[in-house]
Amino acid sequence: MKNAVVLLSGGLDSATVLAMAKSQGFICYALSVDYGQRHHSELAAAKLVAQTLGAREHRVVNIDLTGFGGSALTDSSIAVPEAESTGIPLTYVPARNTIMLSLALAWAEVLHAQDIFIGVNAVDYSGYPDCRPAYIEAYQRMANLATQAAVEGAPLTIHAPLLHLSKAEIIQQGTRLGVDYATTVSCYQANQLGEACGLCDSCRLRRAGFEAARVIDPTRYSH
Amino acid sequence: MKNAVVLLSGGLDSATVLAMAKSQGFICYALSVDYGQRHHSELAAAKLVAQTLGAREHRVVNIDLTGFGGSALTDSSIAVPEAESTGIPLTYVPARNTIMLSLALAWAEVLHAQDIFIGVNAVDYSGYPDCRPAYIEAYQRMANLATQAAVEGAPLTIHAPLLHLSKAEIIQQGTRLGVDYATTVSCYQANQLGEACGLCDSCRLRRAGFEAARVIDPTRYSH
Repeated sequence: MKNAVVLLSGGLDSATVLAMAKSQGFICYALSVDYGQRHHSELAAAKLVAQTLGAREHRVVNIDLTGFGGSALTDSSIAVPEAESTGIPLTYVPARNTIMLSLALAWAEVLHAQDIFIGVNAVDYSGYPDCRPAYIEAYQRMANLATQAAVEGAPLTIHAPLLHLSKAEIIQQGTRLGVDYATTVSCYQANQLGEACGLCDSCRLRRAGFEAARVIDPTRYSH
Repeated sequence: MKNAVVLLSGGLDSATVLAMAKSQGFICYALSVDYGQRHHSELAAAKLVAQTLGAREHRVVNIDLTGFGGSALTDSSIAVPEAESTGIPLTYVPARNTIMLSLALAWAEVLHAQDIFIGVNAVDYSGYPDCRPAYIEAYQRMANLATQAAVEGAPLTIHAPLLHLSKAEIIQQGTRLGVDYATTVSCYQANQLGEACGLCDSCRLRRAGFEAARVIDPTRYSH
């Protein structure tokens, strides 16, 4: 059994990735990053998902990106958009995946893990630049020059198993692997009752995904 | 005048880099990372250096890497070695430069800066894998696929102006640019009086650098 670090946001995608890594026989170390995001309920969801899906350990690293601003997810002066947007959305967090993968890389090195899993997706990717295949490949290449482990001949693989799946396909695979999507939170602005807004990009993608997958959507929406 | 993000540890190398970026006409935003390092006096030094060398702004991002362990600089159960070591030293912090560059990348994007400066050095690099030219090149390639700015055609350059300089050459250039090295701290375990131990790898490289540069070393050593 080999160790793997799995980035776990508490959303639908990363929960599915954790189930996939587990089903491939990895001992999973789940890593969440508290970067000052508005949707803090994600972190509570991540804890529950890690337990439910049998991660060996779950860690939350705190890092304050709110000081940098520039995103509706970390800058309270920018409203989360509710209409369909074109181009790169306001909910883009600068360098978010790069920062999260770098933290995963640090933990992987300490754990002697050669595998990192991340739930990025190039189909329903909402226009985020750091969700594209070329980005993941370039990150892996860089990582293999960055660490003591790589220097010593234990190369690292960045797994992005959702990269080419539609939201519906992700939900179908996760459902087969026993993911309870009721424990996950996708909404950028879920309320205190745990209800999703039903209006933001993330809610719309999720809702449409369940419909297309013909799987019952367990999400409670306020709209 | 263009904005640049300069990674500033408070040590000799990054102070020199800040002076170099300034002399090239950049408006400098200095970024320090508090990653739970033992040598916390570095951060006080960074603040002073940023002021002295005229950075437009200085930010310290807190990120707790102590939980990952694996380094004498963040894991108090591992002693800082005082003898010459071979291979990659115990003071190596897993993925440190990757994490720091990723934070710089996030701030650069918000500032619309296309330039990041980092004081890595491949000559006196103590065997750290993330101080090699190939690593910096791979990082820049990855960064140019990671951000909204890069997608929109504003490519990013990672400047590592010390890459091929010896410690003596760094000190000579910094001295010419007016760096006051008395404000910098290199020691991994400087004491409360601000005295360097004189014994760790970092102290030995610094001391030898001043000697070779024929510049008076303003450092107060306890040994």
